[in-house]
Amino acid sequence: MVKSMQVYEGKAKKVIPLDDGKVIMEFKDDATAFDGKKKAQFKGKGWLNAQISAVLFKVLEEKCVKTHFIGVAGDNRLIVERLKMYPLEVVVRNVVAGSLKKRLPIEEGRELPEPIVELYYKDDSLGDPMINHHHAKVLGISEGEIKEMERIALKVNEILKEYFAERGIILVDFKLEFGKNERGEIILGDEISPDTCRFWDAKTKKSLDKDVFRFDKGDLINAYEELYHRLTGEA
Amino acid sequence: MVKSMQVYEGKAKKVIPLDDGKVIMEFKDDATAFDGKKKAQFKGKGWLNAQISAVLFKVLEEKCVKTHFIGVAGDNRLIVERLKMYPLEVVVRNVVAGSLKKRLPIEEGRELPEPIVELYYKDDSLGDPMINHHHAKVLGISEGEIKEMERIALKVNEILKEYFAERGIILVDFKLEFGKNERGEIILGDEISPDTCRFWDAKTKKSLDKDVFRFDKGDLINAYEELYHRLTGEA
Ligand SMILES: Nc1ncnc2c1ncn2[C@@H]1O[C@H](COP(=O)(O)OP(=O)(O)O)[C@@H](O)[C@H]1O
Ligand SMILES: Nc1ncnc2c1ncn2[C@@H]1O[C@H](COP(=O)(O)OP(=O)(O)O)[C@@H](O)[C@H]1O
Ligand SMILES: [Mg+2]
Ligand SMILES: [Mg+2]
Repeated sequence: MVKSMQVYEGKAKKVIPLDDGKVIMEFKDDATAFDGKKKAQFKGKGWLNAQISAVLFKVLEEKCVKTHFIGVAGDNRLIVERLKMYPLEVVVRNVVAGSLKKRLPIEEGRELPEPIVELYYKDDSLGDPMINHHHAKVLGISEGEIKEMERIALKVNEILKEYFAERGIILVDFKLEFGKNERGEIILGDEISPDTCRFWDAKTKKSLDKDVFRFDKGDLINAYEELYHRLTGEA
Repeated sequence: MVKSMQVYEGKAKKVIPLDDGKVIMEFKDDATAFDGKKKAQFKGKGWLNAQISAVLFKVLEEKCVKTHFIGVAGDNRLIVERLKMYPLEVVVRNVVAGSLKKRLPIEEGRELPEPIVELYYKDDSLGDPMINHHHAKVLGISEGEIKEMERIALKVNEILKEYFAERGIILVDFKLEFGKNERGEIILGDEISPDTCRFWDAKTKKSLDKDVFRFDKGDLINAYEELYHRLTGEA
């Protein structure tokens, strides 16, 4: 596996292209929040997010969701299929939290009567604004592609909601990113981790996700480790 | 016509219910912008907006768009069919201006390859946030209702874009409000005026709308009068 093409370094991961249509996704220990205004490092976060993502991608693959996941490449690295990413964040919400409080007159913690799907245009200089399928069309993404991403996102939600419920965890909301592979298929990419989801303990409603960092709710590594152990059953 | 029920006084109009399923919509001279932070009064604005709305509702009725418009009731008042309003603003855009500049990486004044429709939840305390049909569903508005409003909005756009083009005016964007009548039909309500649309002179790109007030671009009444005369052909 000889490295080629350009390495992309994002806020949370490095993406290292390989020659054979695959890429290495290396999870960093960096944490950022509020459009990068809040920053810190947490030793072990990269490893935890890589492992948790791997577990969740495997769960989804077993239920026939096509993901970019190929394997774990030691420590904080995954090997994934190289995708041409859509500049979109697809957010699914089951419970009111975060920015949804500013969009609907419903208080934090209320369960929604049905899931809400939101699209955001991934653009740091615009602050990742919310868009709809008309905007997406102008960005070169067809309504058919948007419908397919929303369909997959809702399926992912059904699978993961149940999976987490069985482990005493509420899947509050999460963000997905999609890309197209060489065969033109729309594939789930990026990561699924406590950096990109809200997880609440079903009993205590305690956050087991990046809100611990955003709102100084305690020790981030403790929270991510607890989540990891609940998924793997390891002590 | 005996008055009954409650008079609603909004930012730009008074809505006075009558006994027979109709309401009087009285246009005020007040102008507000930026969520009510900027305020002023312009003598004659109410009259102009009432007359311009009447002209445009008639244009739409002739092209088989169902509107609440019944007639002009002297000066700054219209008689309209009473509707149960949806708490929505349906915005259609042909050219990049206003908040769209913050949502897409396209500069002001660029024509869009096709119209964009946006939905906003009319709620002063939340600052009228943008929503999509999933949020609307949670607010009690079905996807079918949203589709119907978007369909009508795009039809209104086609009609008015052409109507204004013939008069040397670019219909940049506009906001519509819809309601349900007693028979359960979705009807175009509220107003269509320089308070709720962006109109640019096709040659000079000069604003003939509320942007004159928002951004201190000159005399508001002059601009609204010019628009009115271009529509009616009156000197
Ligand atoms: N399978 C993939 N192939 C190529 N790029 C990917 C793949 N999965 C995710 N990416 C992209 O890699 C980057 C991940 O790095 P990250 O630090 O999360 O970046 P960002 O700060 O842009 O969110 C993102 O731009 C994401 O879209
Ligand atoms: N046909 C109608 N029947 C009843 N209410 C209407 C009708 N058309 C418009 N409205 C409502 O009347 C009000 C118009 O007053 P306005 O000053 O524009 O209010 P706002 O400040 O809420 O926008 C709005 O709430 C609008 O939804
Ligand atoms: Mg990322
Ligand atoms: Mg109004």
